[in-house]
Amino acid sequence: MGYLISNVHILTMNKTMDAYPDGAILIEGDRILRVAERSALAGEAKNQNHRVIDGRGAIAVPGFINAHTHSGMIPFRSLGDDCADRLRRFLLPLENRAMTGELASLSALYACAEMLLAGISCFVDMYYFEDTLAAAVKASGIRAFLGQTVMGEPVCDSREPYGGLLLGERFIQKWQGDELITPMIAPHATNTNSPEKIREAAALAARYDVPITMHVSEMDYEMEYFRRAYGMTPIGFLDSLGVLSPRFIAAHSIHSTPEDIRILARRGAAVAHCIGANTKSAKGVAPVKEMLEAGVKVALGTDGPASGNTLDLFTQFSLFAKFHKTAHRDRILFPASAILQLATSGAAAALGIEDQVGSIEPGKKADITLVETESVNMFPCFDPYSVLVYSATAANTDTVFVNGRLLVRGKKLTGLSLPDIRRNLDEAMGIFRREATAI
Amino acid sequence: MGYLISNVHILTMNKTMDAYPDGAILIEGDRILRVAERSALAGEAKNQNHRVIDGRGAIAVPGFINAHTHSGMIPFRSLGDDCADRLRRFLLPLENRAMTGELASLSALYACAEMLLAGISCFVDMYYFEDTLAAAVKASGIRAFLGQTVMGEPVCDSREPYGGLLLGERFIQKWQGDELITPMIAPHATNTNSPEKIREAAALAARYDVPITMHVSEMDYEMEYFRRAYGMTPIGFLDSLGVLSPRFIAAHSIHSTPEDIRILARRGAAVAHCIGANTKSAKGVAPVKEMLEAGVKVALGTDGPASGNTLDLFTQFSLFAKFHKTAHRDRILFPASAILQLATSGAAAALGIEDQVGSIEPGKKADITLVETESVNMFPCFDPYSVLVYSATAANTDTVFVNGRLLVRGKKLTGLSLPDIRRNLDEAMGIFRREATAI
Repeated sequence: MGYLISNVHILTMNKTMDAYPDGAILIEGDRILRVAERSALAGEAKNQNHRVIDGRGAIAVPGFINAHTHSGMIPFRSLGDDCADRLRRFLLPLENRAMTGELASLSALYACAEMLLAGISCFVDMYYFEDTLAAAVKASGIRAFLGQTVMGEPVCDSREPYGGLLLGERFIQKWQGDELITPMIAPHATNTNSPEKIREAAALAARYDVPITMHVSEMDYEMEYFRRAYGMTPIGFLDSLGVLSPRFIAAHSIHSTPEDIRILARRGAAVAHCIGANTKSAKGVAPVKEMLEAGVKVALGTDGPASGNTLDLFTQFSLFAKFHKTAHRDRILFPASAILQLATSGAAAALGIEDQVGSIEPGKKADITLVETESVNMFPCFDPYSVLVYSATAANTDTVFVNGRLLVRGKKLTGLSLPDIRRNLDEAMGIFRREATAI
Repeated sequence: MGYLISNVHILTMNKTMDAYPDGAILIEGDRILRVAERSALAGEAKNQNHRVIDGRGAIAVPGFINAHTHSGMIPFRSLGDDCADRLRRFLLPLENRAMTGELASLSALYACAEMLLAGISCFVDMYYFEDTLAAAVKASGIRAFLGQTVMGEPVCDSREPYGGLLLGERFIQKWQGDELITPMIAPHATNTNSPEKIREAAALAARYDVPITMHVSEMDYEMEYFRRAYGMTPIGFLDSLGVLSPRFIAAHSIHSTPEDIRILARRGAAVAHCIGANTKSAKGVAPVKEMLEAGVKVALGTDGPASGNTLDLFTQFSLFAKFHKTAHRDRILFPASAILQLATSGAAAALGIEDQVGSIEPGKKADITLVETESVNMFPCFDPYSVLVYSATAANTDTVFVNGRLLVRGKKLTGLSLPDIRRNLDEAMGIFRREATAI
C-alpha cells in the first residue's frame, strides 16, 4: 500500500535542483519509489493499490526541517514579548515554578501539530522532561531530534544541578534506534554549564553516537563573559574543550567572528540559524553568508514559541531573505531557491541525515509537503521558489507526509484533533497562568 | 438596520488605548454607534433590528490602512524577484508593452480582494489608468485613496510625457466627493519628473484640496543624482520647490537625513514606510524612530505586489518590529501596540482622516476587522497586541467591515467571488505572460 501524489509542481531540492512542473511522486511504505513527469506515472494509479493524492495547483517540496526549537514552551507564547531581560524575568522563573512533565508533553504535542500544519516534517528540540515529551512527539508522527537539557542549576525536571546528564543518558538508552525519534543531549548554553560538564555531555554524545546541541554565541553578556574569563569567544572556548564535531549543532551563533567560522568549518559543526528570534530580541544577524562560504553547514530554526512566536519556517524564509540581503546591501544575494535549500537539503546535511531526507528523490524517506497556490496570496506563480519564500505562509500548507504517512490533508491533521490538543493544553495551564499573571 | 458585533476582545486604538476584553460594538449605517462591555449592549440584539455577529474568540481592531501600494501590479508578482535592476529590466518595460486599462482594473479588483481578506479597509494607491481602476476598487467596497501617476516619459496610459497631469485632473473632477474613493495625484518619483511638473502636480493637489503621493528618497541613484545636481537631498529639493505640505505622502523615504526629518515635521508631510519592500530589495531601513520623535506622521505600506509580494500588513508588523528593534539594538523599542498604531490611528492621521477612521469609537466610520484566535498559531493569548504583531498572518482575518458594510465573513468575501476575480485576471494576462517570459 502506498500513495501516488499527482498533478504537482515538484521542487526536488536535489543536488541539481531538478523540478517537474507537472510531476508525480510514488510512495511505497516509508520511502519515495519514483519521481517523474506525471505522464510517466499515469499508469501507476490503475495498476497498483495506491491511494491517489490529487495535488492540483500545489507545489511539492521536501518536508521542512526546523533545526532549533523548544517544543515545551507553547504556554509562554505572547507573554512579555517586548520586555527587557525576558529570559531571567519571565522564562526561567516560570519554568521553575510551573513547568511539569505533563505540561511540557501537552505543549510538545501542540507544537508538533503546529509544525506539521506548517509543512515541517522534522525538528530539533531542546527542552526538559524529554523522555515524557518524546511519547507525545512520537504520537504525532513527526520526525524529531530531541535534546535533554543540561544546566548547572536546579531546573524544572531536576532539583540537582546537571541532573540532565543522567536523565539524558537514560533517555538516549531508551529511545536510541527509534524509527522517528533521535534522542540527544543538550547542554543549555556555553555560560550555564561548567567546562567539565560540557565535556561530559560531549563525551556522552560521542559514546552513544548521537547529536549534541547547545545555545552558542547568542547573548551579549555571554560574549563578554568569555572575553573576560578566558580571552576567547564561546566558540573558541568550546574548541579548546575539544567538544566541536560533526555531531555538534550550535544554535544561534549570532556573534561568530571570522575565526569562529573557520573553527566551525574545520570541526564540521553545524549552525541552527534563528533569524526571527534573534532579530525580535534585537540581538543581531548571524554572518550566514560567510559561514556558508567557509563550508559551515547552516540550517534554519524557529526558536521556541516564546522567542520566535510561530513554529513555521515560512516566516523565517521571508525574514532570512530581507535581513541578509539588507545586511549586505545586495538584492541578488540568497535567491529564494538558496533559502529553501537551507530548510531542506542543507538542513538534512546539518543534521547528518542527508542520505535519508531533505530532497524528493527515489530511495529517500517520504517526508513531503504540498503547498497550495489557490489562496489569494499565491497568484500568479512565475517562480515557485519565490512564491514559497516571499508570499506563502504556514496557512498555505495543504498536505504533509512524514515517513510515508499522510499526517496533514486539506490543511487538517489526519489523525489528531487540534481542538482536543488545545483544550488539553489549556486545561493544564492553570498554575502556569496564575504564576504568569503574578509576575 | 445595523450590526451588533458581540463577544470580542476590542482594541479600540483610541488615544487612551482603551480595550474591552469582553466587548461589543454597535453599528448603525456607516457609523459606529456604541462601543462597550458586552453586558452593557446585551439588550441591543433583542430590542433593535440588528444582525448579530458572534465574534467569539476574536480580536476586534480598526480596519488596517495600507499607505502605499500599486494595485495594478498583481500580474508582476513572483517575477524576477532576486534579479538586479528589476525596475528597469522587468517592471517598466513590461508596463509599457503589456499593461492596459482592463488588466490594471482586473488586477486592482484582485488586490482589493487580497487586502480585504487581510483586514485592510483602506489603502493608498499609485498606478496608471486610475479612472478605469477606480470603478473596480469601488465595486469591492473598500475605502481608497487613488493616485494617478505622472511621469516624464511615455507610459502605458499616456504616450505623452506628463500626460498623467491631465488624466489626473479629469480623474479628480470625476471622483471627488465619492463616499469611499478619494482621487489624488501621484508624481512617480523625485527623479522621474521635472521640478516644474512636480510643482504643477502639487498645485493641482492644492487647487482641488486632495492628497499627493510620490516615491521619495528610495533609490541610491536618486540620492546621488540630487547630491550632484543640486547639492541637496530629494526631500531638501522638494522643500525648495515648496511642494511639501500636510497633504503630501512621501513613500519610502528610506534615506532621510536628520535635516530631512526636520523638514518633513515642519511641513506636516507624512511618510508611508514600506519595510518589507525596502529590505527585500536591500535598500535599507528608514529612520522611523527618529521620524516619530520629530513628530513626523508615519504609516505602513506593503508597496506593490511586485516589490512586497503580499498585500497584507501582518507581514509588515513582524518585519517592522524585527528591523527597527535590531537597528537600535533595543528589544523594548516599538512594543506591539505601537506598531499597531502605525497601521490604524497613526495611519489615519497620516492621511488626514483621523476624524473619520483609525479607531473603534462612537461616531467614527465602521471600518472594523476581526482576527480569529482559533488557529494553531494564535494560542495562548496573554497579550492581544503581541498575538497580532508576532503570530498572526493575513489568513487569521475572519471578518471585515468597511463603512458599515460586511465585506468579509468567515474568511470569505461576502459579495464577490474570488475564483471569478482570479480567473478573469488570469485570462487577461495572455500578452503580459508572453512578454514576461520573453525577457
